[in-house]
Amino acid sequence: MIKKLQPIARGPSEHNVRDQIVEAAAEYFSRYGYEKTTVSDLAKEIGFSKAYIYKFFATKQAIGEVICSNTLSAILSSINVAMVDAPTASERFRRMFKAAVAESSNLFFQDRKLYDIAASAASEQWQSTINYQIEKKKIILQIILEGRDTGEFERKTPIDETVNAIYLVMQPYTNPLLLQHNLNLAEQAPMILSSLILRSLAP
Amino acid sequence: MIKKLQPIARGPSEHNVRDQIVEAAAEYFSRYGYEKTTVSDLAKEIGFSKAYIYKFFATKQAIGEVICSNTLSAILSSINVAMVDAPTASERFRRMFKAAVAESSNLFFQDRKLYDIAASAASEQWQSTINYQIEKKKIILQIILEGRDTGEFERKTPIDETVNAIYLVMQPYTNPLLLQHNLNLAEQAPMILSSLILRSLAP
Repeated sequence: MIKKLQPIARGPSEHNVRDQIVEAAAEYFSRYGYEKTTVSDLAKEIGFSKAYIYKFFATKQAIGEVICSNTLSAILSSINVAMVDAPTASERFRRMFKAAVAESSNLFFQDRKLYDIAASAASEQWQSTINYQIEKKKIILQIILEGRDTGEFERKTPIDETVNAIYLVMQPYTNPLLLQHNLNLAEQAPMILSSLILRSLAP
Repeated sequence: MIKKLQPIARGPSEHNVRDQIVEAAAEYFSRYGYEKTTVSDLAKEIGFSKAYIYKFFATKQAIGEVICSNTLSAILSSINVAMVDAPTASERFRRMFKAAVAESSNLFFQDRKLYDIAASAASEQWQSTINYQIEKKKIILQIILEGRDTGEFERKTPIDETVNAIYLVMQPYTNPLLLQHNLNLAEQAPMILSSLILRSLAP
């Protein structure tokens, strides 16, 4: 078997350029919209040539993916922080749902800064959103497993069904395309729906 | 107290003209979109004067309200037909959810005919959609009461909370603004979510 060569790291300077492009792009997209912006617009704004940007990112979407994936990581971190120290699986679930909606509302809709790019990512199913879905399901799974283990939750329903159903109930409040129509419920719905879900999990 | 006079009925001919305007408007809106169409466009299409149309409908929205309310009544009828003869409250619930989503997908998105007007109605909260929300909640309430009565469903949770929570779970599949992003789930979600809801209702 031929061992694949690892690409040679070109040191921190390359990282810096990538970061610089991503940062400038995030700023530019949030001002003029992701869909409307071209790589030429970006190049002009940053003062790089188009060809130079293409050395680092093959497409506009590749830049978008980094921005999106940073945002979604930030949401996941906030969820994890919110869940720490929860005394029970039920409480962990409530905190997770609440934090997920609060952070999504914040990041996607505060000044609508990231909404445009998040909407493209969600409707075109970019890799970053697929990864995010997987991570969200993992978090739900871990809480269910914990609750089944401690006897807080029932164990009859196939666990995949439980996780998928809960994921579907949360989806309208975490997917930006749906959340935009539900912002008036962003405070109230996680409470009401967490209670319904926890009743459905009772042994 | 002064007794209000009832408006004098002007006989079937007036009804016919109203119906004719509504029918032509529904056809026209579905072709060119509700938002973009003016009452002048409609008048030209039907061959009436604008003033004549205004004798019957004070605004374009008043025509839209009739179209919307007819559509929503048709959905409610289908739901009622689907629920007849259900042997248990649980089964009635499943049939109700399934029929609501199937009919909504059909009427709003079949050729996207009625989507445009339904979207305006939902986002501007027209009276027809407010009435529809009330009717949907009544149907949910009746099923819950039936199930509590027969002992199929738990009785501890305040009934308003139960009804509201279930309504929220169904909303992404019956509100056209949300359903447009969920059409790929229109078959599967009602089954998965009905099961979750019925688990939450277990005594």
